[in-house]
Amino acid sequence: MPELRRDPVIGRWVIISTERGKRPSDFGKEVETGVGKYCPFCPGNEDKTPPEVLAYHDPSREKNKSGWWVRVVPNKFPALQIEGALNRQGDGMYDKMNGVGAHEVVIETSDHAVDFPDLPAKRAEDVIWAFRDRIMDLKRDPRFEYILIFKNRGAAAGASLSHPHSQLIATPVIPRNVRELVNGAKNYFEYKERCVFCDMIKQELTAGQRIVSENDDFVAFVPFAARFPFEVWILPKVHDSDYEDLQKHEAVNLSRLLQQSLKRIREVLDDPPYNFILLNSPLRESKLPHYHWHLEIMPKLTKVAGFEWGSGFYINPTPPEEAAKFLREAD
Amino acid sequence: MPELRRDPVIGRWVIISTERGKRPSDFGKEVETGVGKYCPFCPGNEDKTPPEVLAYHDPSREKNKSGWWVRVVPNKFPALQIEGALNRQGDGMYDKMNGVGAHEVVIETSDHAVDFPDLPAKRAEDVIWAFRDRIMDLKRDPRFEYILIFKNRGAAAGASLSHPHSQLIATPVIPRNVRELVNGAKNYFEYKERCVFCDMIKQELTAGQRIVSENDDFVAFVPFAARFPFEVWILPKVHDSDYEDLQKHEAVNLSRLLQQSLKRIREVLDDPPYNFILLNSPLRESKLPHYHWHLEIMPKLTKVAGFEWGSGFYINPTPPEEAAKFLREAD
Repeated sequence: MPELRRDPVIGRWVIISTERGKRPSDFGKEVETGVGKYCPFCPGNEDKTPPEVLAYHDPSREKNKSGWWVRVVPNKFPALQIEGALNRQGDGMYDKMNGVGAHEVVIETSDHAVDFPDLPAKRAEDVIWAFRDRIMDLKRDPRFEYILIFKNRGAAAGASLSHPHSQLIATPVIPRNVRELVNGAKNYFEYKERCVFCDMIKQELTAGQRIVSENDDFVAFVPFAARFPFEVWILPKVHDSDYEDLQKHEAVNLSRLLQQSLKRIREVLDDPPYNFILLNSPLRESKLPHYHWHLEIMPKLTKVAGFEWGSGFYINPTPPEEAAKFLREAD
Repeated sequence: MPELRRDPVIGRWVIISTERGKRPSDFGKEVETGVGKYCPFCPGNEDKTPPEVLAYHDPSREKNKSGWWVRVVPNKFPALQIEGALNRQGDGMYDKMNGVGAHEVVIETSDHAVDFPDLPAKRAEDVIWAFRDRIMDLKRDPRFEYILIFKNRGAAAGASLSHPHSQLIATPVIPRNVRELVNGAKNYFEYKERCVFCDMIKQELTAGQRIVSENDDFVAFVPFAARFPFEVWILPKVHDSDYEDLQKHEAVNLSRLLQQSLKRIREVLDDPPYNFILLNSPLRESKLPHYHWHLEIMPKLTKVAGFEWGSGFYINPTPPEEAAKFLREAD
């Protein structure tokens, strides 16, 4: 069972893989599984993954066989384990608990070679729906406090398989970054009686210089204090703290804007590795007036080094206004 | 002038390079300058760096000429600029100020090919003293609130030059990570009336299973909730919040333990890239009963991906107890 351990000074939780611990010689150059090689996410290999928890498929198709277009499976090497009780306990001055949680893979398409931005509109929408379906389902498990959906694309961004996929981790504690984000938004709300993200959208749409693109329901911009060059945030224009409230027209417009934004990034930056993360509200805190769910895309162009690790201070070599201009003009 | 911008939700400051902004095509594969090629830190090239702010050298040597063994120079491409006023101001809902600060390079040896762990003991001690001298000097500038000393070794850890060096950045605000660290320690102190780091040292020395090595003044161990595999912390055994209080025997023992720890990491992990950071107390807060300065070494073995960026939750694939055992046995 993996172990969750808490830093006694700042309260940061860490997942420690206690069972199949990596030895020094295990840290090699990880290479991504390429096109043409064996891929456990490709149709025909359904029995190489744990049994699916969700699939969108042809009506006639059997479970865990081909004939699907989106398929969600538990991660074969999960960071957290689905079975068991938390069993919070002390170890002298330290705190720990069992590494209970869910770790799933959203296989975005059956076609190994078609990346998310190139999926037909309907298929991209299905990925957006799959995220929602999984949140709705996992939310019913009272042990979970948060669900983080994220994508690692390219080996430098942490991907180990090249078949288009994203991931989901449900955690038994609210992650520190999320707690800070929601608390920060709450402080602003208490002071101003307005949502900080709604204010941001208003100022960005008025100023215009950091906007990448927008449609009826969503806006994409480079944030004022972007940590990374060409970082892009996507926010729903109408206030909502919960991703799972997504309506049909919103799913259409979100998948459209996400596809477009990723295409622009690919064009301007020559297909860089990237991560995206979906920052939803904590599972037990919904309909928050102060929090606004959103998605952050972070192209992996620079290296995070000692200064950033030590200070939490980032150095961004590209002004957000210039990055937005490049992205806006790529069309 | 670089610009400091504040994230309006969580208050994270970011340094934005507004002048020589990197364009999309500037993000290539950065390669480290290798041995044998031209190196601006080598003796004879003193005029290729900005004029030195400190040097330990032969008595007869002229300023900015060869004949030194440790040399500190301003970074030629500084993240922050030394001249100017902060000029804090708003931009609608956002906050910004001028990117005023110091960014210096500590050239640890005149010999390009001798890495810090292999320096003669006396020379390694001098590097430890140089850190202290620079803190003492920069502390007198009332614009600075914090000084972070750090080392990036190897291209994957963010180094762009292979000549052994570390860096220092003085910032006009207290970095968020440091604020959290000092506040976390303060909360513990208020509850327990003891320093959390002193407690940690006591528990680690008693338990023993995470200890890497120790001497009269310092102890090196893998922290209980290590974020990274083979992460090592070095702490002074006697409580002190301020690095610049270092006494002669402590400098000797710190440089010895740091050299040893880096050698062990090099041996066990086959010379990995790494970062280290010196987490001193904020400049205007000294003699703190609750804070304990220390040094964190982070070998760069895994990739930080979407989950970590999104949640601030780390996944460490090597249990700290196993990592410590490997490091302890490497001798």
